[in-house]
Amino acid sequence: MGKRIRARDMGIKIGVMKPGRYNAITDVEGVGVGHSTIIEGEGPLVIGKGPIRTGVTAIVPHQGNVYENKVRAAVYAYNAYGKAVGLLQVSHMGVIETPILLTDTLNTWIVADALIDYMYEVMNVEAMSINPVVGETNGSYLNDSIGRHVRKKHVFEALRKAYSRDVMGPVKEGNVGGGTPMSGFEFKGGIGTSSRVTNEFSLGVLVQLNFGRREDLRIDGVPVGMELSDVKPRGKQQSNSIIIVVATDLKLTSRQLWRIAKRAMLGVARTGSYGSSSSGDFVIAFSTSKRELNPLIESIQKDTGQGREAIETNETFLNRIFRATVEATEEAIVNALFKAETMIGRDYHIRRAIPLDQVKEIMTTYGRI
Amino acid sequence: MGKRIRARDMGIKIGVMKPGRYNAITDVEGVGVGHSTIIEGEGPLVIGKGPIRTGVTAIVPHQGNVYENKVRAAVYAYNAYGKAVGLLQVSHMGVIETPILLTDTLNTWIVADALIDYMYEVMNVEAMSINPVVGETNGSYLNDSIGRHVRKKHVFEALRKAYSRDVMGPVKEGNVGGGTPMSGFEFKGGIGTSSRVTNEFSLGVLVQLNFGRREDLRIDGVPVGMELSDVKPRGKQQSNSIIIVVATDLKLTSRQLWRIAKRAMLGVARTGSYGSSSSGDFVIAFSTSKRELNPLIESIQKDTGQGREAIETNETFLNRIFRATVEATEEAIVNALFKAETMIGRDYHIRRAIPLDQVKEIMTTYGRI
Amino acid sequence: MGKRIRARDMGIKIGVMKPGRYNAITDVEGVGVGHSTIIEGEGPLVIGKGPIRTGVTAIVPHQGNVYENKVRAAVYAYNAYGKAVGLLQVSHMGVIETPILLTDTLNTWIVADALIDYMYEVMNVEAMSINPVVGETNGSYLNDSIGRHVRKKHVFEALRKAYSRDVMGPVKEGNVGGGTPMSGFEFKGGIGTSSRVTNEFSLGVLVQLNFGRREDLRIDGVPVGMELSDVKPRGKQQSNSIIIVVATDLKLTSRQLWRIAKRAMLGVARTGSYGSSSSGDFVIAFSTSKRELNPLIESIQKDTGQGREAIETNETFLNRIFRATVEATEEAIVNALFKAETMIGRDYHIRRAIPLDQVKEIMTTYGRI
Amino acid sequence: MGKRIRARDMGIKIGVMKPGRYNAITDVEGVGVGHSTIIEGEGPLVIGKGPIRTGVTAIVPHQGNVYENKVRAAVYAYNAYGKAVGLLQVSHMGVIETPILLTDTLNTWIVADALIDYMYEVMNVEAMSINPVVGETNGSYLNDSIGRHVRKKHVFEALRKAYSRDVMGPVKEGNVGGGTPMSGFEFKGGIGTSSRVTNEFSLGVLVQLNFGRREDLRIDGVPVGMELSDVKPRGKQQSNSIIIVVATDLKLTSRQLWRIAKRAMLGVARTGSYGSSSSGDFVIAFSTSKRELNPLIESIQKDTGQGREAIETNETFLNRIFRATVEATEEAIVNALFKAETMIGRDYHIRRAIPLDQVKEIMTTYGRI
Repeated sequence: MGKRIRARDMGIKIGVMKPGRYNAITDVEGVGVGHSTIIEGEGPLVIGKGPIRTGVTAIVPHQGNVYENKVRAAVYAYNAYGKAVGLLQVSHMGVIETPILLTDTLNTWIVADALIDYMYEVMNVEAMSINPVVGETNGSYLNDSIGRHVRKKHVFEALRKAYSRDVMGPVKEGNVGGGTPMSGFEFKGGIGTSSRVTNEFSLGVLVQLNFGRREDLRIDGVPVGMELSDVKPRGKQQSNSIIIVVATDLKLTSRQLWRIAKRAMLGVARTGSYGSSSSGDFVIAFSTSKRELNPLIESIQKDTGQGREAIETNETFLNRIFRATVEATEEAIVNALFKAETMIGRDYHIRRAIPLDQVKEIMTTYGRI
Repeated sequence: MGKRIRARDMGIKIGVMKPGRYNAITDVEGVGVGHSTIIEGEGPLVIGKGPIRTGVTAIVPHQGNVYENKVRAAVYAYNAYGKAVGLLQVSHMGVIETPILLTDTLNTWIVADALIDYMYEVMNVEAMSINPVVGETNGSYLNDSIGRHVRKKHVFEALRKAYSRDVMGPVKEGNVGGGTPMSGFEFKGGIGTSSRVTNEFSLGVLVQLNFGRREDLRIDGVPVGMELSDVKPRGKQQSNSIIIVVATDLKLTSRQLWRIAKRAMLGVARTGSYGSSSSGDFVIAFSTSKRELNPLIESIQKDTGQGREAIETNETFLNRIFRATVEATEEAIVNALFKAETMIGRDYHIRRAIPLDQVKEIMTTYGRI
Repeated sequence: MGKRIRARDMGIKIGVMKPGRYNAITDVEGVGVGHSTIIEGEGPLVIGKGPIRTGVTAIVPHQGNVYENKVRAAVYAYNAYGKAVGLLQVSHMGVIETPILLTDTLNTWIVADALIDYMYEVMNVEAMSINPVVGETNGSYLNDSIGRHVRKKHVFEALRKAYSRDVMGPVKEGNVGGGTPMSGFEFKGGIGTSSRVTNEFSLGVLVQLNFGRREDLRIDGVPVGMELSDVKPRGKQQSNSIIIVVATDLKLTSRQLWRIAKRAMLGVARTGSYGSSSSGDFVIAFSTSKRELNPLIESIQKDTGQGREAIETNETFLNRIFRATVEATEEAIVNALFKAETMIGRDYHIRRAIPLDQVKEIMTTYGRI
Repeated sequence: MGKRIRARDMGIKIGVMKPGRYNAITDVEGVGVGHSTIIEGEGPLVIGKGPIRTGVTAIVPHQGNVYENKVRAAVYAYNAYGKAVGLLQVSHMGVIETPILLTDTLNTWIVADALIDYMYEVMNVEAMSINPVVGETNGSYLNDSIGRHVRKKHVFEALRKAYSRDVMGPVKEGNVGGGTPMSGFEFKGGIGTSSRVTNEFSLGVLVQLNFGRREDLRIDGVPVGMELSDVKPRGKQQSNSIIIVVATDLKLTSRQLWRIAKRAMLGVARTGSYGSSSSGDFVIAFSTSKRELNPLIESIQKDTGQGREAIETNETFLNRIFRATVEATEEAIVNALFKAETMIGRDYHIRRAIPLDQVKEIMTTYGRI
């Protein structure tokens, strides 16, 4: 099957903007990512026993106490056949006050409860009310999902990693953390990430990919899925969701972050999504507020001759950030596909990794690399 | 302190429409309510030990398998500083597929997870994805909320009761189930219910009351709170939320149910809410779809001379249902206050029951009874 | 019928906060209001001829060029059976870039077009795109509404007044401007205003009142409508809408202004609204951003012992503003009713002014004045 | 420049579903489209004089009185920097009660007022309130937009055509009606349409295209814009909007139509949209309700073995309609570009038609035709 590489390693360049050092959400200063991956057993499904193919991924907006230093945030529920927790409060209050966790659907509430434990036990929060944020997609094609095997210790492990060594560096992708059992276009999916960095701002995207019919897959516009439609084995994609987390260091209002969150879906569309009826397609966008808009606005002023005031109120400056969001989302999805390895799960269900050699050939034929 | 009675027992008649037999959400055929109440210990708060003043309330839309026979539903998040679970999916898909549970804030996710257990273990659902609906308000003034004392057995107990003897009859109000530790206008609050029934439809409301500054309380327009402002003891209302469940037997679309859900807030306003910044004010409305609109539309046709088609598209018929919603919500809140008894909770915090003798006197002075 | 007075002149004090100097939206520095009122003809309706009972009301957020100096804003569509123009752009961009105009339903688009004229001809805007904001309620019970008698000159007149002598002073209420033909609780309605002013902020509300069934009218909780139910003549309220404009000088985000806008409906509820199915109930809230939050937050810090950072992120400070909004909205509605005079319109339709002597008697009987 | 052809005439097949007879929104039975196109003058811009490059496009949902026989509808405001009229009422009431008109931004309100005239004068509506629906994009790069040259007669002309000879047949695309002065990817844009038809339903899309940076243009995944980036002349795209109308004959609720409306944006994304900050991207979806879901559900039942009830509540059947929406939207945009001819407008601004020969070459090189 060969080594799993990322899209850029194959020469695929999505869009025109430049990724950051790690081409990951961790290019946004302070953002940390940690995974806890649980893979145990094989063979027929025995609910409560396994086989287990699951986990949890933690994204921390900064290295401090998120409850005490909340970050501005917004959510966009493109299609809300999903169980994500905490999003309505984020949309009204405009802030996130815990790390963000991603997991398998039916673990959602256990994970949310463990996050509460973490906030009290580790973060020493004293408040009587905390709003945990947990996203999910459904990994039951490979995992004993009904068994709900994620425990408090796994949540703490993912958070501990997000707060330490995994910070500010490369992010593991594919079959890790919440993405462990997920699928993408009837291949193996999971966690993927990408970033766009300019002199004015950094923006990173992390996805938990779990949607798609194979024939619909496009990579940088090339109908790769159609070309790969006869790759065996395949199992019908049972669920069709994606959770997207967008981080930026630019200080923005929650309304502006909401507008950014909406753009992520344009990136999803480019890879071949039809927004399936039973998809939970959610975007959570937050800002670490570490950089002011000034340099970005100044660079636009030079271009357009407009005054600062005019640009701020018409928000022209958001266009570059919108573009960064679309590009990084599309690339994060491709990275999830590329880095995920073939997995055999419950009842011998197989999700094959997308065959990178064939993809490379197709991309070459279509003149894209 | 005297016997706790309901608003109508004191002669208070909110609005002009008639309640059903039990003046409760159970007047909507098939709807069941069950409570599990946990009261243990007294004295200083020891997190994880108690004192415990909590519980869970279950509302079942009908006596069958809700997953197999989903009910049309809608939600309205008036102010979403709250942790309610499952609402975004309801708003997109227009159906509820589990019973609705109400509890204390920090129990929310444990309760949601136990509801999943119930759906698999008792309801024998085979699907890999279920959307539990759980509402909450914050009972930490009296309860060891951080200790999260609600367990699977309590959730199952509430559900078992909702599916059996508590069905189609009077609903226990006040310090029961999810309402156990709640406050209202700095008096004791909790669960309250009321209904409005006509020849054409039944509509019932159940609230978990936990909001209000004492001075703001109005009962049927009378400034009762101002008159009672010096009643001792009092403790500042720490949280300010209300969860409202509206049930009707009229077959409606989710858009129409959403419009109904919005009306519930008008009833809340009449009792003295300012929609506090940190309130979780959510309304969940569902329909059992047991009655068609026909008789209602016919009775309006007689009044207005309009044809059926015209009325259906302009939805004039909803006005009576809107009125029923506002009236029943206001009355359910008053019932919650009236039926709740004085409770001493953690750290000897006291929530006094609203003194009914004094209320009666005030209502008489103001010429309302 | 006697002199028309405002609610406070009768001794009615809605809520606990203090109005500003004029108890009007113009207590927010810079906000101006101007009316153009058109009353012509009497007798049977001849569409296109009259009788005419209409007009337009202009609210300007500040005395400068609103396009060049946009103001932060938000909208809340409680029930959107209404034709208001420009609101979706406000909700996405978070700013208003023209004055706000209020008129009779079918004039809406002529008025919007004339506002465009004004922005180009008088304000000398050079942009190729302008977003006019126009609200409406339906005055067809008294007015030849289909005739659409408002012209560019009337729009310019209202705007000229809003930008000059009517600024920063008392606002004419009742049968003026856009409110000319409107009804309220089957009495005469129209324009009303009120304000709440503290050391920290000013907040003003202006309403165009056109909703209500007589029996439902409550004034400060007293069932005045029920008591006045046999006052003759009466005509069934044909339409059921209210447009509410909220202004504040406190610098807030559009998300916060949206939260404020939602509170206005609580004030509406207190006067007896059931949110009729065919109502256009819209709230537009804007901020002149002339005052920073600092003093308000400091005063809360003293009360609660919380640090500044904590208060800003949990938005506790909004509670006072929410209260001001609810109180001023309720009072503005009562002022609209009190100041409106009996009007005879098309086809000899009569809307009687609410009889203030009787109201006074009722309020006294109920112990409220 | 050669003959302007549609995408399919060049061999481009977007997606996998089949278009209807005319590959147009008129493939939905009863839907009519009419254009009034105004092209007058040339040379320097004199506001109020010209040059004029504008018009209005009418879409009628059926051949009867739309006010009397309203159609179910929904709207989706992806990015609401736009002046569309009537959408909030549609979103709350779930119906459209007038034809839909499309025009140049600053004509919006004149056109809405003329539509009111039409409803009273031609449709003989007697109601005192009508909700006109008008969409717009900004044609000021070529047109004297501030001059607002669309008049009542043009609106009536477009409507007359939509109600007669243009019905149920090919729809004129490119520089016609509301699309007359519009741009697309810095080429000439305008009106485009496409459809998807199955045994179970028909779905058609009509767009007024006015967005895009040239380099971003993708056609069926091919980076055509990048390849054409040096085509001269070009003028920076001043505005960035698209209005999309989706029609289907399948009887659906407004919630389901809302879900469909959201999918249209996925089609937009595939052509290269980043959802510019100052874009007015609105989708209006309606159903003529001429076909029941039955056959569609039955065909899915065969596939999945699920019972009818289960499918109806989980809405699996919508997936095919979502796909049809995405495909037809993408193709409608390409058709708008392909059919639009080079236009010289005010101040000698030129929008060149996309050079079809070069496009054909590129598509061939990339192996797509």
